[in-house]
Amino acid sequence: MQEFTHDAPPGREQAVTDEVVASFAGAPDDRLREIVQSLTRHLHAFAREVRLTEREWAAGIEFLTGAGHITDDKRQEFVLLSDVLGLSMLTVAINAPAAPEATESTVFGPFFVEGAPEVPLGGDIAQGAKGVPCWVSGSVRSTDGSPLAGARIDVWEADEDGFYDVQYAGDRTAGRGRLRAGAGGEYRFWSVRPSPYPIPDDGPVGRLLAATGRGPMRPAHLHLRVEAPGHRTLVTHIFVAGDPYLDRDAVFGVKDDLVVEFAEHPPGTGPDGRELDTPWASARFDIVLEALE
Amino acid sequence: MQEFTHDAPPGREQAVTDEVVASFAGAPDDRLREIVQSLTRHLHAFAREVRLTEREWAAGIEFLTGAGHITDDKRQEFVLLSDVLGLSMLTVAINAPAAPEATESTVFGPFFVEGAPEVPLGGDIAQGAKGVPCWVSGSVRSTDGSPLAGARIDVWEADEDGFYDVQYAGDRTAGRGRLRAGAGGEYRFWSVRPSPYPIPDDGPVGRLLAATGRGPMRPAHLHLRVEAPGHRTLVTHIFVAGDPYLDRDAVFGVKDDLVVEFAEHPPGTGPDGRELDTPWASARFDIVLEALE
Repeated sequence: MQEFTHDAPPGREQAVTDEVVASFAGAPDDRLREIVQSLTRHLHAFAREVRLTEREWAAGIEFLTGAGHITDDKRQEFVLLSDVLGLSMLTVAINAPAAPEATESTVFGPFFVEGAPEVPLGGDIAQGAKGVPCWVSGSVRSTDGSPLAGARIDVWEADEDGFYDVQYAGDRTAGRGRLRAGAGGEYRFWSVRPSPYPIPDDGPVGRLLAATGRGPMRPAHLHLRVEAPGHRTLVTHIFVAGDPYLDRDAVFGVKDDLVVEFAEHPPGTGPDGRELDTPWASARFDIVLEALE
Repeated sequence: MQEFTHDAPPGREQAVTDEVVASFAGAPDDRLREIVQSLTRHLHAFAREVRLTEREWAAGIEFLTGAGHITDDKRQEFVLLSDVLGLSMLTVAINAPAAPEATESTVFGPFFVEGAPEVPLGGDIAQGAKGVPCWVSGSVRSTDGSPLAGARIDVWEADEDGFYDVQYAGDRTAGRGRLRAGAGGEYRFWSVRPSPYPIPDDGPVGRLLAATGRGPMRPAHLHLRVEAPGHRTLVTHIFVAGDPYLDRDAVFGVKDDLVVEFAEHPPGTGPDGRELDTPWASARFDIVLEALE
């Protein structure tokens, strides 16, 4: 520990923190005041704990500036940053459904796009995304077991090369779609079997991962967002059992209950009568949404 | 306090934090590892303390994205953010000189520009910046009292309307310059009397200040950066005694020892023989740089 022989610098440091916290005392919104005062205290505690140097402070400013400049309509470096620092998964944990039988949530990620094409039940969301054809089916139910007919299901995924459509050159939509559960809460669609992929690592977040000896890979997954009236919206993934990155997800998103066996099938007739001249895969994932009071 | 009746969410939250901290365990650079692990713990502690909602998380991402997009070569919203959260002044405090006789530091701010014009001793840094002519003089000495001949002094300031040159339309340089102390460590220059001004408040940081009931004003000041071989570089301000914002600086930069009386003079002959047909001002500020071992 340092020893201070004059002028009590730690007291001076605390005085800065106190002054900033007090400056927010007049914030008219109670919740905003609580957040900015807590953020101030914890941010200052971090800087004091590591004895942040001016050079390191400047590196932090440069990091955030670089993250801001690489971020656009299709690239969200701040979400990536939150993801790799586990803040996204912590926020998911903080806001976890109260009902233990509800399907677990995981990170939203930076690749959701509003306005994905509507796909009929049993339709194909791949829209030309490369990969092994994959049939995904299941049900959407409420925590009381009742089927949620008409539940809205958004699905998005990377192709077998690990790219989402927003990472393609041009504006093509692929590997995403919106469907509605049927009268018995059932859902089904064709897609491609998910593949592991690196999060975009050509920006500040990728450089942070490299500098800290962490890998950028995510285990294979499909993204789901499921909404039904009177229910808590679910944001989750279906992970592929056996994936080599399940224990080292760059964004800490894996939960055991979200890991599903994907069956492999030889060429032949699919569950909906579709004739496949290549191998295909299938997975089943039943969804339970938490009923709101 | 919340009560948790099942599945121990707080334990799950701690597990996320532990997993992220552990993911950095292999970082080859000890200091970087210390920083990212500490940042993770404190950032998570903040989110847990306020029970951050997903909507609030998204607002945070949006805030940072907006800050990134307004930042360019001349506008640095992340420095402003650090300033208004007091992180800049805390970093100054953490890195304060050990020698109590050394001149105190304050925030660097976002308006420094490399490559400011060289100005001879006694020259005018205003370069057309509007305001009351102001003569600033003093000495640069080491902590042992010896004069620091040739010390490099960067000066920058806003004009009487509160604008730095980088905030003007076009690329004009004004209100900034670089000079060198004379053989006896003395320095002197003409400038304009500093005026209070709002930090740029048309971006996310300005909206944060407004939403939390804080003002954007800074008390009048001149910026100085002073460098000499074998000495710790000083970044500081000269504040104007009597300024109405000294007790409410938006960036918490005021220190009593940096507040100086600015004398007012009627039209007449300046200290260097210059004839002034308007009132003018003057201030004296002696600088002590900390000798490095």
